[in-house]
Amino acid sequence: MNTLLLTPADLSPSAAPGLRRACVGGRRADHLRRELGIAPGSRIRVGLLGEGLGRGEVTSVDDDRVGVAFAVTEPPPAKLPLTLVVGLPRPKVARRLLIDAVAAGIDRIVLVGTWRTPKSYWQSPLLQPRRIDEHVLQGLGFGGDCIAPRVELRPRFKPFAEDELPRLAREATAVLATPEADTDLRPAPPGPVVLCIGPDRGFTGYEQELLRAAGCQPATLGPRTLRVHAAVHVAIGRLFREATPAPHALRVI
Amino acid sequence: MNTLLLTPADLSPSAAPGLRRACVGGRRADHLRRELGIAPGSRIRVGLLGEGLGRGEVTSVDDDRVGVAFAVTEPPPAKLPLTLVVGLPRPKVARRLLIDAVAAGIDRIVLVGTWRTPKSYWQSPLLQPRRIDEHVLQGLGFGGDCIAPRVELRPRFKPFAEDELPRLAREATAVLATPEADTDLRPAPPGPVVLCIGPDRGFTGYEQELLRAAGCQPATLGPRTLRVHAAVHVAIGRLFREATPAPHALRVI
Repeated sequence: MNTLLLTPADLSPSAAPGLRRACVGGRRADHLRRELGIAPGSRIRVGLLGEGLGRGEVTSVDDDRVGVAFAVTEPPPAKLPLTLVVGLPRPKVARRLLIDAVAAGIDRIVLVGTWRTPKSYWQSPLLQPRRIDEHVLQGLGFGGDCIAPRVELRPRFKPFAEDELPRLAREATAVLATPEADTDLRPAPPGPVVLCIGPDRGFTGYEQELLRAAGCQPATLGPRTLRVHAAVHVAIGRLFREATPAPHALRVI
Repeated sequence: MNTLLLTPADLSPSAAPGLRRACVGGRRADHLRRELGIAPGSRIRVGLLGEGLGRGEVTSVDDDRVGVAFAVTEPPPAKLPLTLVVGLPRPKVARRLLIDAVAAGIDRIVLVGTWRTPKSYWQSPLLQPRRIDEHVLQGLGFGGDCIAPRVELRPRFKPFAEDELPRLAREATAVLATPEADTDLRPAPPGPVVLCIGPDRGFTGYEQELLRAAGCQPATLGPRTLRVHAAVHVAIGRLFREATPAPHALRVI
């Protein structure tokens, strides 16, 4: 965790104008105390979900709660204009993928069912809405962001590929990453991008046909087969050459 | 597993010239039987460690062994000319990172100790030489490769950065990925590349100084902080724009 991500539910009443107060427990308090070794007076980076980023100071530490005072002083980093359509991997991998994809700034993540996705994966506790929200919050904290991306589950591939994807692809640079393509995945021109990546062992031929019919152009990441999590991140590196953002003026409170 | 990776120890005597035989058990046999559902007569892709790739046919399947006949017909894909110097992450993450870094074709992987690497990590069973060999073989199988990269453990940061790294960096495009850099990580020119990536929470300022003194230029992957595994793969995507390789002429046996 690089940024302590707060949600509106963590806020406490505060008297001072501009200065806000919050109190966190659980995983976040543990991490602050044990791994970052914070104490009253420690300065930390803070994000408030849906609002912005800023600096905070730890005001209290006890067994299971950490209190902070903070001010929101800057906007979050811009999202990558990317919709990731990815074949649902094993639930534990899906969790890691969600956390890292959110940290990387992906704007919209669609987990789709495929021929090679066992149906049982969808029943995993790790994919319950409450758990998905947790993965998203963890990813935002790692990445230093505070705007939650859209995460959508589409267990049925065909209705998604035929009814939803064409509209997304029409307004975007839409690519299907597959080792069988003749052309390399190249940097995307400015504007929205849709990236489709199969589950481990890939989309079937029929699924690839549906994705192509929906407007996605095949492109390859190279001659080597990568596992889903690695493939997503290599593809992000290829597609986006983001300019170094202007440094934010940090107002230390 | 996309390619059944065989080692010389798996080979059985074979009478037919050009045709070789092997027998595998354990994890590989399980995977072939349960996940790929192979049966006698199934065709599979095969790699022979240190030699090359080819096609094989399953000749026998019993409870815990799978026999194949195969021929080596093509060279492995070229490695990325990359030496990855990475702060040792948690052992379970290190295992995943090794597997995926090998699958991606990294030529040399140096796991280094850093200020933020707990010393206990080096004692993990997952980092014993025999286990590292297993991770490498798994990565080669996923990536469709058969040439093992060098994997080196350097628990002591300073001797590595001062005595070994300058020589590596002198002959290469050498970069230090850090969110604090002013310039973006760009595609590497042809030739060897050295990429240094810190552990989670990054290299310390002093470590970064040593890396810069060794010849590594700071560059950023963007305003967001990524976890080690994700950062390595985004960086690979940025650095290497490999041309689509000429399709290999596959001789089906």
